[in-house]
Amino acid sequence: MQFKQIILTGDRPTGPLHLGHYVGSLANRIALQGKYSQYIMLADVQALTDNYDRPEVVRHNIFEVALDYLAVGIDPKLSTIFIQSQIPEIAELTVFFLNLVTIGRLQRNPTVKTEIKQKKFGESIPAGFFVYPVSQAADIMIMKSTIVPVGADQLPMIEQTNEIVRSFNRIYNCTVFPEAQALVPKAGSARLSGTDGQHKMSKTLGNAIFLSDDIDSLRKKVMSMYTDPLHLKVTDPGNLEGNTVFEYLDLFGTNPAEINELKAHYQRGGLGDVKVKQYLFEQLNQFLEPIRTRRLALAQDPAHVWQILKTGTDQAREIAANTMQEVRAAMHLDYY
Amino acid sequence: MQFKQIILTGDRPTGPLHLGHYVGSLANRIALQGKYSQYIMLADVQALTDNYDRPEVVRHNIFEVALDYLAVGIDPKLSTIFIQSQIPEIAELTVFFLNLVTIGRLQRNPTVKTEIKQKKFGESIPAGFFVYPVSQAADIMIMKSTIVPVGADQLPMIEQTNEIVRSFNRIYNCTVFPEAQALVPKAGSARLSGTDGQHKMSKTLGNAIFLSDDIDSLRKKVMSMYTDPLHLKVTDPGNLEGNTVFEYLDLFGTNPAEINELKAHYQRGGLGDVKVKQYLFEQLNQFLEPIRTRRLALAQDPAHVWQILKTGTDQAREIAANTMQEVRAAMHLDYY
Repeated sequence: MQFKQIILTGDRPTGPLHLGHYVGSLANRIALQGKYSQYIMLADVQALTDNYDRPEVVRHNIFEVALDYLAVGIDPKLSTIFIQSQIPEIAELTVFFLNLVTIGRLQRNPTVKTEIKQKKFGESIPAGFFVYPVSQAADIMIMKSTIVPVGADQLPMIEQTNEIVRSFNRIYNCTVFPEAQALVPKAGSARLSGTDGQHKMSKTLGNAIFLSDDIDSLRKKVMSMYTDPLHLKVTDPGNLEGNTVFEYLDLFGTNPAEINELKAHYQRGGLGDVKVKQYLFEQLNQFLEPIRTRRLALAQDPAHVWQILKTGTDQAREIAANTMQEVRAAMHLDYY
Repeated sequence: MQFKQIILTGDRPTGPLHLGHYVGSLANRIALQGKYSQYIMLADVQALTDNYDRPEVVRHNIFEVALDYLAVGIDPKLSTIFIQSQIPEIAELTVFFLNLVTIGRLQRNPTVKTEIKQKKFGESIPAGFFVYPVSQAADIMIMKSTIVPVGADQLPMIEQTNEIVRSFNRIYNCTVFPEAQALVPKAGSARLSGTDGQHKMSKTLGNAIFLSDDIDSLRKKVMSMYTDPLHLKVTDPGNLEGNTVFEYLDLFGTNPAEINELKAHYQRGGLGDVKVKQYLFEQLNQFLEPIRTRRLALAQDPAHVWQILKTGTDQAREIAANTMQEVRAAMHLDYY
């Protein structure tokens, strides 16, 4: 029997998941579960690094994101969902890893640089946020993960992780940690535009369609979507490029023949936006309806959902404890 | 019944303890044990922040320092000796505290600034070293210590700890942590000069008399001690000021009348350095001999010493676990 490779992936529980998450990661996770040993982390400790003063938001969203996972088809029998804060071994490993990275190296991390600008910390960067590449290395390595699905913008994080792995194994003369490989989606396939057509879909920007949206919200959001700004009259020929409605149809439509016909009609003129949007709404609702139903059913039984999280966390913790035992042995910290 | 106040103190296990440690902290700990709930931490994780590539040195010195403690009179029934690395709750608390301190604040910490210069890290400051005031706050607060014996140079560390305490209690609307008070020794009483008379006693500077020195090493070190550089002939009047031999006699001599007589004789001339040194050697040996004997006996039974450390660590861990339970409740991280 061959050991399955270990994947680590996860989300910061700061809000409910949306179609952007589905396209960017959830669909991938559903495809990979069973083929790999997949660990999905609810990164509440990481969420607290820039939400430290709103712990109740993080707590609330642990449960909401878990509902999203289960409703969308993450199968807890095939994927281990766990909660970061309940694995203290990650903090232990973080503290040891912090010795293997210099302040200068962290300052040069391009991902952190960009995020610090985006988050407008100014001079007040929380130390926890500044060192989060190190925590992330600990998240990945506590499970000895070898595959980490990330966006191209996150590649420096994997590089940082592997630098730490090499330092650790060299300094402590051991092979405790494997190097991790990034699993980067094909260009263009992972980023879904928001309903405004201007930015990536994001809760903060208010351009998101959530997996948990009810039918009325869904209709309203689709009907106000960005299309071709020059397609003023129904009779005008319309443009598909940058047209968010057609971007979504390509991803969520179930009938390519119908969609091709709509595209051709739209391009030659005579097909109004409202009609295409109505069609997209139906297609999206067809996709979201069973998710919504499962989600509502799960929400009726919170104890069951928490039990799934507890079981997954217990499983992950066992692995984490084993890893830390090896770490302590390598570092000569196994005194008695 | 009134609760005893809690003291946290400890040492980085990077080498055996010397007379400077005795004067600076050990004597004080012996005096305080029983009056307070005293926790003495073997700070191996902190030692690793700048000895990360020499874990075997740290491991070795855990045992040596424990021998020093017990031999000198730290009573494990009155003081709880524990090993930092065996309390993972400290790492957990460190990670949460890191969110409450900014990078700018850490950069302005005068103690860290000075130590970074001393240790000659240059541009390669390990992140673990840079954030160690935060770890130290976690060390202190995991035991809810209210009294921390420190040198005056360490006052910024206590200030940093209390800033974190206030932030935590305010942000999470709780009273989990008490503020800590520094217990600073009276001016001049805590710093012992090295045998070179030029610097504070320090293993690194090679000017230390260790609690574990054998009688020959002791004699050799005392005989080569710094006295009055202008006291060239026996008949010359000698100077007491900055004269290390007399500094030690004031601290370790048992007969003030004899010492006063020696001082007067030395000042008026006619008393040679060799004679005073011989006297100091006898006085020091009288002090160190029982410590040496107890130390050798303890070293014969390592299992017993490790058992003392394990028992202390188990006791400390119970308190740490209780603290973390309160922390998780305050941070809304007690999910199930």
